Amino acid sequence: MQRVKAILSYDGTYFSGFQKQPNARTVQGEIERALQHIHKEAVKVYASGRTDASVHAIGQVIHFDTPLSIPPERWPKAMNSHLPGDVYVHDVTFVPSNFHARFDAVEKEYRYRILRGEGDVFRRHYTYQCPHPLNIAEMKRAARYFIGTHDFTSFCAANTEVEDMVRTVTVATFEEHDDELVFICRGNGFLYNMVRIMVGTLLEVGQGKRKAEDIPDMIAGKDRSLAGKTAPGRGLYLWHVQYEK
Amino acid sequence: MQRVKAILSYDGTYFSGFQKQPNARTVQGEIERALQHIHKEAVKVYASGRTDASVHAIGQVIHFDTPLSIPPERWPKAMNSHLPGDVYVHDVTFVPSNFHARFDAVEKEYRYRILRGEGDVFRRHYTYQCPHPLNIAEMKRAARYFIGTHDFTSFCAANTEVEDMVRTVTVATFEEHDDELVFICRGNGFLYNMVRIMVGTLLEVGQGKRKAEDIPDMIAGKDRSLAGKTAPGRGLYLWHVQYEK
Repeated sequence: MQRVKAILSYDGTYFSGFQKQPNARTVQGEIERALQHIHKEAVKVYASGRTDASVHAIGQVIHFDTPLSIPPERWPKAMNSHLPGDVYVHDVTFVPSNFHARFDAVEKEYRYRILRGEGDVFRRHYTYQCPHPLNIAEMKRAARYFIGTHDFTSFCAANTEVEDMVRTVTVATFEEHDDELVFICRGNGFLYNMVRIMVGTLLEVGQGKRKAEDIPDMIAGKDRSLAGKTAPGRGLYLWHVQYEK
Repeated sequence: MQRVKAILSYDGTYFSGFQKQPNARTVQGEIERALQHIHKEAVKVYASGRTDASVHAIGQVIHFDTPLSIPPERWPKAMNSHLPGDVYVHDVTFVPSNFHARFDAVEKEYRYRILRGEGDVFRRHYTYQCPHPLNIAEMKRAARYFIGTHDFTSFCAANTEVEDMVRTVTVATFEEHDDELVFICRGNGFLYNMVRIMVGTLLEVGQGKRKAEDIPDMIAGKDRSLAGKTAPGRGLYLWHVQYEK
């Protein structure tokens, strides 16, 4: 058996998230269906992590094992020819049989696109359109408080089963690209809805509903109700997953 | 009755074109449904021209008559609150009762987005993804032959009922934006599928299948079979409609 690592992008709009579910269209379901076509038998896929409904990916990473002797450079075309238009495999490499897409990930980058304005029919599924004026300098200042190793309980959806809520955030910043404000966040791992709650909180700072200085207390309080709303999934992208060289 | 002029954009992906048809989702159908909600009676809408299935619009113009006393600045919100997410009214002005969105248009601009590459899941409905290398200098040179007043029979879908095939093209050029090549075409009017056949022909020039110098003969021959294929609708945008001041 050969372990295969694949990097893929997907448009999350018409998926009920990454993880396979009965009676729902999922990314994992589509990939496993494509691999079953190729293998004529079931193949299980493991991802770096799941993404929620409407969340997109530019650099999701998966692994699976294959008994087939297809060379790496031919795998993308083989898979893409069986995948729907909203999932695309960009790159495939062979990895040792102990590689694991989830457990070996050392850093992840998420991005969140905020469109400053409303009524862009072409980006309605790909950005969060914010019609309110935003104080970007304050948002940048607030974001810096997330950097470091913290217990992020306040920034985790309440219905999680994870026990260790400590994560290290190395990058939390905003870039302005034309009419978009893009939040870039990098860290060793993220809790359920963590980036979306961070963005929701930062949007409230940008609108003057909260102060940048309140972020440390929100973190210290370890209580989801202290942080802001969860920003919509459609602005979020799993951008890159980093593995040890 | 007040005649109302509205500028709107739409994502053509999930429409069977602009023009109302029985049992099909159309832009005109959605707008007339929204206006019927507001008026409690049927309101007929006239556009600058129809667009085909999957073709988008940034600056489509429509007109309709209303007995209501809603001021112009409140019309966009009134309409948008009844429109689906893929149609958006940007601007409304009151016009004299003899204004006509179609007959008064003096110039139209279309744009066609060609993505140089493939597998971009986010632009699959919004560009034509061309995996072949393209000689852009040749395409620019070829495009210039379209400028002027010509009989465009060779660049019109065969199943048209229009009799006068003479149109004046004032701009036909390519701009490069990052990984996209954008064809910009402006003229006093366009025949059915004209821009898409021009783009399809220019793509064949870019791939070395035809020469730029062949365009004048294609035009002179007045025969659809002399020109190239019709490029897919998803790359095409009705960008702007100009009216006499």
